[in-house]
Formats: sequence, structure tokens, C-alpha cells
Amino acid sequence: MSHETACILNAGDDDADVTITIFFADREPVGPYRLTVAARRTLHLRFNDLDDPAPIPRDTDYASVFESDMPIIVQHTRLDSRHSEVSLLSTVAYPEG
Amino acid sequence: MSHETACILNAGDDDADVTITIFFADREPVGPYRLTVAARRTLHLRFNDLDDPAPIPRDTDYASVFESDMPIIVQHTRLDSRHSEVSLLSTVAYPEG
Amino acid sequence: MSHETACILNAGDDDADVTITIFFADREPVGPYRLTVAARRTLHLRFNDLDDPAPIPRDTDYASVFESDMPIIVQHTRLDSRHSEVSLLSTVAYPEG
Amino acid sequence: MSHETACILNAGDDDADVTITIFFADREPVGPYRLTVAARRTLHLRFNDLDDPAPIPRDTDYASVFESDMPIIVQHTRLDSRHSEVSLLSTVAYPEG
Repeated sequence: MSHETACILNAGDDDADVTITIFFADREPVGPYRLTVAARRTLHLRFNDLDDPAPIPRDTDYASVFESDMPIIVQHTRLDSRHSEVSLLSTVAYPEG
Repeated sequence: MSHETACILNAGDDDADVTITIFFADREPVGPYRLTVAARRTLHLRFNDLDDPAPIPRDTDYASVFESDMPIIVQHTRLDSRHSEVSLLSTVAYPEG
Repeated sequence: MSHETACILNAGDDDADVTITIFFADREPVGPYRLTVAARRTLHLRFNDLDDPAPIPRDTDYASVFESDMPIIVQHTRLDSRHSEVSLLSTVAYPEG
Repeated sequence: MSHETACILNAGDDDADVTITIFFADREPVGPYRLTVAARRTLHLRFNDLDDPAPIPRDTDYASVFESDMPIIVQHTRLDSRHSEVSLLSTVAYPEG
């Protein structure tokens, strides 16, 4: 089973509204998932906990894109106990406009 | 044996035509390998599956360069069971012009 | 127990004054922690050793932000023996003005 | 014992002259180490093999800076069998002028 998490940091003084879209190999993307990271706080996200608008299918590879109205830092970790695979991706998300 | 994979994300609304070139320590590069990542889709690539214009030699270190006519994100993972080595490289490939 | 470290490189010819701020999920940030990385030197930092203005709480997830008056390179490693988790983050910190 | 390696890729059509400087916590940097990565080739570097102008001290932490007269990509791996630590750093080095 894959345990995929993201640690989101909002080092600024305003709450950040974040939307996450999940992409798959063989179906349309799911989302947006919406969450708020409070000012000067971290948020530890387990992708398996996302359920609105729909749970993320298990046993299916996916990729995620974060968008935010405030600058945030996303550190992404995937642990796959089947293959002892460690997958890491660090991203800086900035508001687009 | 080395199991090298790449997860490619095309988050855009147009298909991305991707070419991959493989570089070696002691011979000329091989390629281009061509593949298409559909709009709003991921593609999980196993380098061992590449065979046109030629399979990638086994037991040989190599490096890969991705080029794309649309913005894509490439997350690269190498698992080498001989040395428990985990190798990761995340790349953003943009069209050149 | 989590063993979190950072390797800081100051490749320049002037000492770098660095401040670190620690962010949490459910409380105000702690800091600034202050340290100096001498010119042309590395510094290996164990977060558990930081104690001024306050030790970092154990068993609590946190994120760190580095600021420096000189360009430095920070390579961040987290080893979590509970989950065999390896977490890596490489950052380049530049002075803001 | 630490096994530190770097995979250098020169995807261009001109040989790249690379210099490496090694930085320490408590002594002056050592270098430059000089090597050439041929056009359209990779080079797999073991830091323990570097010996001119001097071998890199064993059992000592260090950081390395790569400079090149042509664009290269450096993928850096550190395996520390004492702590099962995996350390990764990917860098793009461009000529300065």
C-alpha cells in the first residue's frame, strides 16, 4: 500500500487557500480538493484522507498539482511498502496573479 | 539489476509530444525515443520498455534528457537493488520555442 | 525518534549570519535561532541541538526556514527511524536585499 | 564508510572542463580538482578517487561545488552505510560568463 503525504508550509502572515488536483494515467483528473493552511503554520496532508469531491482511488498511480493564493512550500513524500520505494518532490507554489 | 522509471505529468489541455535521448559514458547517445502524454494525464515510463530505435543496454549507466513541445513535469526514480541505491531527479521540461 | 539535520555550505569569502525559524502545525513559530557559517566552510546542524530561544519540541512535526545575509546552500535531511522515512530538501538561500 | 558519487551529464556538442572544490567544517577548501566531460557523454565520479591536488580526507564531512565552462547536469548521491543515510542533490551548473 502506498502512503503518500505532503507537508505544506505557509510562512507568511496570511492564510493560504490551496487547491489540489489529482491526475491519473487513464481517466480525467479529480478535484479540486480545497484546504486552508493558516498563517505561520504547517499542514501535514495524507492523500488517503482526501474525500471531497471524491476519495483518491487506491492501487492507482497519480500525480498531484498544488495551487495556492499565497506562496507556500510543499514537500511531497511517497512511501511504497511493496517496493521500499521512496519518492520525494519539493515544490514551491506561488499565486499566479 | 536497475529498475529505472519516470513519471510524466501533462497537466495541460493539449497532448504533449515528448522525445527522450539516452546518454552513456563511452558511446554515442541513443534516441530519440518518442512518446505522447495525453492532455490531463500521467504516463509511467519504464526505461527497460524503450526499444525504438534500440533497447537501452542493461548493466550500463546512462542519463536521460527529456524534451517536450508542451510543459510537462518529470519525476525520475532509479532503484538499484545491488546497492539499495535510491536515485531521484525531478525535472520540469518546457518547450524551447 | 526523528534525527533532523542540515548541512550548510558557505562557499563565499565572507561569514554568513543565518537565522532559522521553526514552524508548527498548531502553535506560533519559534525563533529566530542564530548561527554563523564561516567563510569557505560547512556547518553540520542538528536541529535537536538548537536551544536558544527554546529547544524544538520532540515528537512534533515542524518545518524550518533559513535566512542568510550571504548566499548559502542548505541540504536538509530527516531520518525517521519509526517509518524508515528519508526526507530531503535542498535549498539555496540568498540575502533578500 | 561514506561512498559519495556524482553522475555528470554533458548533453552538449562541446567538451566541458569542470573544476570541483571541496569544502570542510574546520579547514580551508581543497581544490580545484579538474576533469573533462566529453561532448554527449556522462561521467561517473567517485569522490574517493580524487587525488590531485590531494585526496579527500576520509571520515570527514564535506561539501562540493562544481563549476563548468559548458552547461552540465550533476546528480549527487551519498551513501553512508553507518546510518543507512541516503543523500541526494541535483544541480545544474552553467558557465559564469
